[in-house]
This record gives sequence, structure tokens and C-alpha cells, in this order.
Amino acid sequence: MKPYNQMSASELSVLKKELDAAFLKHKEKGKKLNMTRGVPSNEQLSLCNEMMTCLSASDYTADNGTDCRNYGGVDGIPEMKKIFADLLELTPDEVIVGGNSSLALMFDNVAVNMSHGVRDGVPWQQQGQVKFLCPSPGYDRHFTVCKYFHIDMLPIAMGAGGPDMDAVEKAVSSDPMIKGIWCVPKYSNPTGIVYSDETVKRFAKLKPAADDFRIYWDNAYAFHYLGDTHKTIPNIIRLCEEAGNPNMPLEFVSFSKVSFAGASVACMASSKSNCEYIKQRLTAQTIGPDKINQLRHVRFFKNAGGVMAHMEKHAAILRPRFKLVSDTLHRELGGLGIAEWTEPEGGYFVSFDAPEGCAKKIVSLCAQAGVALTPAGATFPDGNDPHDRNIRIAPTCPPIGELAEALEIFCTVVKLSAVEKLLT
Amino acid sequence: MKPYNQMSASELSVLKKELDAAFLKHKEKGKKLNMTRGVPSNEQLSLCNEMMTCLSASDYTADNGTDCRNYGGVDGIPEMKKIFADLLELTPDEVIVGGNSSLALMFDNVAVNMSHGVRDGVPWQQQGQVKFLCPSPGYDRHFTVCKYFHIDMLPIAMGAGGPDMDAVEKAVSSDPMIKGIWCVPKYSNPTGIVYSDETVKRFAKLKPAADDFRIYWDNAYAFHYLGDTHKTIPNIIRLCEEAGNPNMPLEFVSFSKVSFAGASVACMASSKSNCEYIKQRLTAQTIGPDKINQLRHVRFFKNAGGVMAHMEKHAAILRPRFKLVSDTLHRELGGLGIAEWTEPEGGYFVSFDAPEGCAKKIVSLCAQAGVALTPAGATFPDGNDPHDRNIRIAPTCPPIGELAEALEIFCTVVKLSAVEKLLT
Repeated sequence: MKPYNQMSASELSVLKKELDAAFLKHKEKGKKLNMTRGVPSNEQLSLCNEMMTCLSASDYTADNGTDCRNYGGVDGIPEMKKIFADLLELTPDEVIVGGNSSLALMFDNVAVNMSHGVRDGVPWQQQGQVKFLCPSPGYDRHFTVCKYFHIDMLPIAMGAGGPDMDAVEKAVSSDPMIKGIWCVPKYSNPTGIVYSDETVKRFAKLKPAADDFRIYWDNAYAFHYLGDTHKTIPNIIRLCEEAGNPNMPLEFVSFSKVSFAGASVACMASSKSNCEYIKQRLTAQTIGPDKINQLRHVRFFKNAGGVMAHMEKHAAILRPRFKLVSDTLHRELGGLGIAEWTEPEGGYFVSFDAPEGCAKKIVSLCAQAGVALTPAGATFPDGNDPHDRNIRIAPTCPPIGELAEALEIFCTVVKLSAVEKLLT
Repeated sequence: MKPYNQMSASELSVLKKELDAAFLKHKEKGKKLNMTRGVPSNEQLSLCNEMMTCLSASDYTADNGTDCRNYGGVDGIPEMKKIFADLLELTPDEVIVGGNSSLALMFDNVAVNMSHGVRDGVPWQQQGQVKFLCPSPGYDRHFTVCKYFHIDMLPIAMGAGGPDMDAVEKAVSSDPMIKGIWCVPKYSNPTGIVYSDETVKRFAKLKPAADDFRIYWDNAYAFHYLGDTHKTIPNIIRLCEEAGNPNMPLEFVSFSKVSFAGASVACMASSKSNCEYIKQRLTAQTIGPDKINQLRHVRFFKNAGGVMAHMEKHAAILRPRFKLVSDTLHRELGGLGIAEWTEPEGGYFVSFDAPEGCAKKIVSLCAQAGVALTPAGATFPDGNDPHDRNIRIAPTCPPIGELAEALEIFCTVVKLSAVEKLLT
């Protein structure tokens, strides 16, 4: 089939009738299919079922003698810290292990910087209207944190190698009320892109106007590769150290998509000095994270190598799903000139760009035909996609048969919306 | 032996020599004994060791079909909510189950009220200098939370039936900047007292000048009885509801001293309306609590009755320890007119009142003789005991033989300090 923009109005009208009929047929089937959520499938979760039984009733002592059942320790048991440190190529004293939610660690860090300031600095909220840079499309929950704290969100365009660094440098160096930036540097949510070495290096060398500026480096998909090769990015914490900005980056990692999404272990990594500072606050805040669950993770994965071997099992489950998305989109939409999409080598999403002004409509029509998608715009600050074009496809969770059906309906709707746009 | 204040100076001098010698002897033994921490002993923790193996590899589904391994649910699984609700005589929609730390839930609640206000109210921090009433002696970590948020702490005297309610009512009704009060209503930390029915009823009927005043009802020892009978207190949430103050109380409970101190489950309880409000915030803050650990607790305890039966096992372990404290203090210090102490029927502490001006010195001398005690004053706001008298004895953790040794040294030091005070 030729590109839609080379079709005559009558050709488009014929096509529209066919697509209307196909859409109606889908609608009549009354399916209920869900592509909204970037969550692991049952098959993936089951990879870790033995974790529930890997501790014996007498196995509760950490290597340093800590009784993991009792109180004590705000930054995690040594062997769990070591696994995170090894995975991130850091030292254990640059790691604080928390509970099961890296989002909670990020929220907490923003909350504290707002109310108490960065280290001994003036609380952000006392300095004026706080702003964050938000590379977009990005992770909606980052934007929700900003919204909760009334932080202004400044979108930054995303390219193939990461955020537009010219724009980042310009903004950060000129405005002292820009206090942070949200980054998902590897297999980014939702675009799947990996920050280039150059991008990471430029991050480390930022010269912020605010001395309390922080990079929120949400390395959520650090080990979540799909391809045969595992991409690497430079170590932001080391680079910042070398550039004289040792306390600027705050890295967040979790095992939510490694072990159990709801019962995993998350960590924050930063300079040793930042970690010491944060531990002081944690002693006021909590009796400490669940050390037994940390020990469970240590016993199950053994070491960083064990984690990476386990991630290959996840990749084996996810590869066919991402291939199905890619194959279907190519087959149905390839060469039509109406859409673009990413072919991620890791992460949980495919980022899809529909014709401008069509994303909301596509999501709405899909809903009518029984396919639930993430709301259009969710990947932009305030839910506002300026081009109404981006849709996040989340292929990990539905059974693969349902995924195939959902993608078929999705492609029909995309074509229908594109034709309708060209006809008006 | 007769009361010290009836002794002549020469009698006291003789006694001092004996006590000096005894103290020196203790010191020379070079013991290392610890009575600082209100933590469960190994024996208590071992009561729950089977919890580590009580889930099979295929046991991860909650009654409502929730896959506890995956994301989702910010307020806990229904069966865990029901256990807390039954224990507290509430309904499950009045309960939010959190992670492993009730302190974290309290800190979080204060943080949010400071930054965002109570429900839709003006943030506390925007209203002026925030104040909390602090019944004292009390729990040092409550005071640390206040300190962290620069909240002024106003001490309130504690009597046999709870805080001085005349003082509470007067303060709360007259000063709109008093936004909260910390309460440990049952087997209080450190006095062990149980709030009387009258006290609880007066709490429910408070008429605060601030419409965003909150009672932080830390029911930390709700099920932690030592005696043969289990004391009950009126249901603060029901009473507040009946008094037209449904949103005023925030109750906190945890299983830290029921299952594993570091790996348990905590909850917050309040009006259904408050819970709905708080759940909105939680969706921005976290991916939700560890549901697998909740399921583990549900399988192990089965129901509220199972929890209470388990608490009898804790009581059986703790009774001899508290009896040893009581017997030793009576034997060594009874009738000397130099000290008073509590005989708690539950909880984790004995509150000890030394002669005025002697607590710091006693703690310091005990340290010299190898007995670590909680810092004197820790049970008062800002660590400031106006009479330098109160010492918190924590008998739960050390092996009982060490506890006996520590108590012997402690009593020697108390007597020595009392004599020295009388001689100057």
C-alpha cells in the first residue's frame, strides 16, 4: 500500500469505508484487552517464586552478624549493598538500600529537599517557585511527584541520544530556581532510548546556577535489556566526581522488575558524603528497611552476576512480545507515512508517534473497541503532549495472544484516524 | 535499712565507702551490658521463625485475586486490613496498611501536614511556628520527628491515668498553632501506664482552636500485655466520631514487636474519609507496600485471634524479665526513699525516677561500670528532663543473666548517687 499522503481523496474515502467496517467488527467482538501498564507478566514474576521459600527458619543472620529480624540499620545489610554497588560499579558506602519502592525514595528525596534543603542549604520551597527540567516524553510518575510538590515542569525535547543537552545546559546554568531534572538514562521510559556517552558526560559537567541542583538519575531499567547485547552507559556518579560535582547526582535503582514488582528492594546511590548526610535523616524517619527481604534477595541472587543471569530469563520472555509489536507495526503501518515508533533494545515500552493531533482520538477509539491504552499525553508534564501525538505501548503484561489482538485493533484505529485527518 | 534521709552524716559516709568499694569492684569486672534498647530478644524473635517459610512458591494470591507479587494497591491486601481492623475494632476501610515501620508512617504524616496541610487546609508550616504537645516522659523518637520539622514541643505532665488533661484541654483550645499531640495510650513508653477511660473520652471531646489539630495515637503496645489480664482502652476513633471530631485521631499500630522488629507490617487507622484522602497522596508517593510480606503475616497469624494467642507467648518470655527488674529494685532500693519506679502491666519499659538531679550522673557512672543505659533526658522533649531524674530501663533484650548483673550495678550506682547528693 502506498503512503497515505500520496492517495487521492477518493482512494482515501474507499479506504475509510474499509477501516470503518474493520473497526466496527472489532467493536462488535466486545473484547477487553489491556496495554496500559508497564508491569511484569505472570510468567516473569514466576521466575522468582522460589524466592518465597529460599530462607530457612534459621537463616536470618547477615555476614556482619546482624540479626535481620530485629531493629537496626537504616542503609541496608552489607551483602545487599554490595550487590547494588557491584551492579552500578560503585562502592557499598555510595549505596543506601531502602524498601520496595524506588518511587518512594525519589518522592522522599524531593520532599526533604523542598522542606529542609539540600544538605545544609536553604529549603527549596523558601527560595521561590521551584522548577524541574522534564525530558519528554518521560515517566508520568516523575511528573506526578513534581505536581504534588507544586514544582513547575519545563519540558525538554528527547533525541536519539537523550535529552537536548544544549537546552539542558542553557536552562540549568541560567536559572537558579531550576533545582532538578528527571532522567531515565537507559532504555528510557517510554522511548527506550539509551543516553549517549556524550550526553552523560555533559550531564556530569553541568555548571548549575543553583548550587543545590540535583540530577534525579532514575536508572529503572539498568539491567533490563532485550537485545543480545547489553548496552552500557558511563557511570554518572564517577563522572560527576571527576568533574567536581560529586554531590549532584542521585541515582535510583530497584529490583521491582527483577524480582517481585510489589515486594522487591530499591536503592539510592550517590556520593559517600551525600549518603552519610541522608542516613542522619533516615534515623529520624524510620526504624530501617526490611532486612529479611534483603537477605531473601541475597540468598536468591547470590551476587551481581546472579542478577544479570536472571535478567537474561526476563529478556527471553519479553523478546517475543517486543518482536510481535515491531512485526505488527511494520506489517500494518510500515511505509504508510503516518506513524513512527521506537524499536527499544531494553526497558518496558514502545513509544509510538501517531499523526499530529490524533493521539487522544486513537486512545479513545481503542477504548471503544475494548483496548485500554495509557492516556494520551501521560508521558508529558501535566499530561499535555503539545503535538497530541505520543502513545505509550506497554507489551509486557497481557498474554501474548491478547497482545496480538490488541495490536491489530490499535493499527486499524491508527489508520482510521490518519485517513480521517487527511480527509478533513 | 532505713530511709537515707533519716541517716546521719556519719552513717551516710560509712555507706558511701561501702558503695564506692562495690562500684569499684563492678568497674574492675569490665562487663559490657546493654539496657538501652526496647527491642525484642532473640527468644521472642524466634517465635516467628516459621514465618520465613510459611509461604509456598505458589502462594501469592490474595483473597480478592490480587497477585501480591505484582504492582498495585496502596492500602494493603484485604485480609491484612481485616486483621488490623479486627484488632482495633474498626472496619477495614478505616485502615491503611503500610510498610514495616509505623515510625515512617508517623514521620510521613507530619511531613505532609507540614508541607501540604491537613486534607485541604493551609500547610502547617505556612501558618506560623507549629507546636505539638508532648506528654513526658514519652517516646524519644516522637520528639525527634518534631525536632526534625522544627516543631516546638510543649511538655505535658503524665499522671497515673495519662497526660494532665486539664493542661491538654487548656492548651489545645486556646492556641491554634498547637497542631498535634503524641500519645502512647496503652502501656506507654516509658511509663507503662494505660490511659484511663476518662482520659480517652476527654481526648475525643477536645475542642481545638485549630481545625487542623491531630491526635497522633501511637498504639505501639496495643497487644503487648505482661500481666494475666489484658487491659483495654476505649476506641479513640469511635469516640471521636461520636463527639463530632471524626478526622481528629490518627492511630498507628505495628507488628514490629509481634513478628519481626525489622520486617513486620505497620498500619495507620483513621476515619474512612481521612483514609480516602491519604490514599490519593500515596498513589503519587509509592508503588505500594510489600504485599507478599502482608500475605506472609496473614498466613502465619491467620486472624486477629491468632495474633492475640501469639502475644501470650511474648508475655510468657517477658514476664520473668520484668519480675526480675521489680524484684531487684524492691530488694535493693525498697524503703530507702530515694527512688520510684513503675510496675508496668505491658509494654517494653520500666520508668525509673532517681533523686532529683541524679539521672545524668547515674547513667554516666553506669557506663563507667560497663552498663549502657538510654541517655538520661531522652524521654523528654529536646532531651531535657527538667528534674534530671527519669531513666528508662529496657529489660527485654539482654539475656536474663546479663540483665540481673546490669540491674545490680544500676542499683549500686543509684544508691551511691543518692548518698553523694545527701552528703553535699
